[in-house]
Amino acid sequence: MSEIQITQVSVPEDVIHLGIGQPDENLLPVDKMALAASHCLNPKNRKILQYGRQQGDGNFRTSLARFLTHEYDVTVNPEHLFITAGTSQALDLICALFTRPGDTIIVEEPSYFLALHIFADYQLNIIGTPIDHDGLIIEALEERLEKYKPAFVYTIPVFHNPAGVTLSAARREHLIRLSQKHDFMIVADEVYQLLAYTRTPPPPLATNDSSGRVLSLGSFSKILAPGLRLGWIQADPALIKRFLIRGYLNSGGGLNPFVSSVVNSMIELGLQKEHLHHLRNVYRERIQAMSQALRLKMPFLKFSEPHGGYFLWCQLPDDVDAEDLLAIAETHKTGFQPGVRFSSENALHNYLRLSFAYYATDKLVQGVERLRHIYQ
Amino acid sequence: MSEIQITQVSVPEDVIHLGIGQPDENLLPVDKMALAASHCLNPKNRKILQYGRQQGDGNFRTSLARFLTHEYDVTVNPEHLFITAGTSQALDLICALFTRPGDTIIVEEPSYFLALHIFADYQLNIIGTPIDHDGLIIEALEERLEKYKPAFVYTIPVFHNPAGVTLSAARREHLIRLSQKHDFMIVADEVYQLLAYTRTPPPPLATNDSSGRVLSLGSFSKILAPGLRLGWIQADPALIKRFLIRGYLNSGGGLNPFVSSVVNSMIELGLQKEHLHHLRNVYRERIQAMSQALRLKMPFLKFSEPHGGYFLWCQLPDDVDAEDLLAIAETHKTGFQPGVRFSSENALHNYLRLSFAYYATDKLVQGVERLRHIYQ
Repeated sequence: MSEIQITQVSVPEDVIHLGIGQPDENLLPVDKMALAASHCLNPKNRKILQYGRQQGDGNFRTSLARFLTHEYDVTVNPEHLFITAGTSQALDLICALFTRPGDTIIVEEPSYFLALHIFADYQLNIIGTPIDHDGLIIEALEERLEKYKPAFVYTIPVFHNPAGVTLSAARREHLIRLSQKHDFMIVADEVYQLLAYTRTPPPPLATNDSSGRVLSLGSFSKILAPGLRLGWIQADPALIKRFLIRGYLNSGGGLNPFVSSVVNSMIELGLQKEHLHHLRNVYRERIQAMSQALRLKMPFLKFSEPHGGYFLWCQLPDDVDAEDLLAIAETHKTGFQPGVRFSSENALHNYLRLSFAYYATDKLVQGVERLRHIYQ
Repeated sequence: MSEIQITQVSVPEDVIHLGIGQPDENLLPVDKMALAASHCLNPKNRKILQYGRQQGDGNFRTSLARFLTHEYDVTVNPEHLFITAGTSQALDLICALFTRPGDTIIVEEPSYFLALHIFADYQLNIIGTPIDHDGLIIEALEERLEKYKPAFVYTIPVFHNPAGVTLSAARREHLIRLSQKHDFMIVADEVYQLLAYTRTPPPPLATNDSSGRVLSLGSFSKILAPGLRLGWIQADPALIKRFLIRGYLNSGGGLNPFVSSVVNSMIELGLQKEHLHHLRNVYRERIQAMSQALRLKMPFLKFSEPHGGYFLWCQLPDDVDAEDLLAIAETHKTGFQPGVRFSSENALHNYLRLSFAYYATDKLVQGVERLRHIYQ
């Protein structure tokens, strides 16, 4: 009999897989969640078990807006929030609502590889556009907008997955102006927004949207727990209305009312804030330890230390294909994500993505010690 | 300032709306859920907060299979279960996976009206087929199968919403044979399967499926709490595999891992079984009270007392349009669902659906007392 599988990924004890972009299980705050659950599950609160309002529980949206306002230092209105069952579900729903098979969308090169699978499910024509240290390159996007009329541009404007970069304030303004001029939507995947360690990023893109074309996607997966399947979309209320009439929501009500209520208690009790500050301290140390080990042990890798998020995006010498090195990594009981997986153009072969989120610092350093063997 | 809205439906205190097909808030077991949450949220169990396996947590599927095996008195294998975020989400996903715009599907006339909205989102061509006291009429379906090649037949084979009827064992066999002969899928919405009060229905359709064409949809919304957004699909493992490769699941993992774990504890602690038995006793009394009141006060309504589920399907005299009577009902501070809402053919005007689930017996009797004024 094989062991019963509970989690999506399971890594053998003796492997240190540096490609896993998931939180460290030891950081999942089961104790705080127990407090929150017992806080909200009381007889005065039976409504949290009923079909929920399509847009999301009003109490939860109010708490969440207050929490985000504090963290962003920019006012967020509860009426600008729509509660989702996580960003993957939100992306799927956005495709269902706003695209038809054969539509073109523009994504960054590189981009989050599992989002590309979702877009492929909807048979979208995916066009890549390059990024640099300041995020999406506006001029390159403009060139593509002369040739294509995208349904939306999918961007990861903050602590990019995999590249770690953040879109500059000037480019943000420019991007929003372009969306108005060329009439496309912006789907901003901002799940790492609150995981800032050494520099505060600009606030979410939807904050500066005056024309109702921006969907800013947030999530509790990275700041609390992925197993909750809870996130939000921040957008103009007129845009949010288009989600609420979907048959699936009309029939089943709000997407995750009970979990919303538990997380509402996490926020109300101050536990979410406490946990987020803890994560920032832990991950800040992990980045530093891993970066230092990489510089010391793998000087042939080029990378910039990111200011937040989960990832280090590393460049190998031009003539090296990271996929070829995976087998070597595996013999040393380690692993990474080859760059090509993040490419919509079968490129980026000499890149690889490492994550510092899944393991504690000693394991990260040990992992790098193993990984150095991929290239000498 | 208006009151903050939490639930999908909110009825003014002085109204008794007999059209609401949702559980009574007083029956939502917030105390049992608190026990279950504190049982599963412990430091040995951090995995329940991680990204979950796409098919659903193996422990939960094992418990659920055991629970269903006991309740159905037919063996259910955990590998035949795929965990969903409720039946509405499941229906949406089924449409996304197995249909293309313009495809034909066959639904019962009447059918669950909010499912019809989901099908409309996918631009499906909806063909109705009649039912009688034994459910879907096979001969009528056969006629339609000569003219149409449906992607699937959507049936509510047990304690039908709205009609209350259950598909007979003989017709079940016949329907499955037809699905093999004409190569269509059967989407069986069985959310009321376990709410049997006075007669045990045949086991779920997927139980007798040897050819991998049946999807049996179950849910915790009616036997525990809708706010959980948790359900399951029972099907052949080969059919389940087609769900697991969807980009949305690949990216976000299993659909509701944390809630699965709380409900796993509900089952393990015997609380789910206890609650289900309680519900059966409560609803059995409510059906009887409401039926008796209707026979006494509204003898012009024809209906059969159902053996399970949530609904009484009532026929008015032929020349009466239930929609015309809604305004009268509202002046008497009551309400119902007009039959036409359940029709894909703009028919069934002289029917109305009442539910005995949302109110206690005294309110139900009081509601009928108000409702009698719609027709004299």
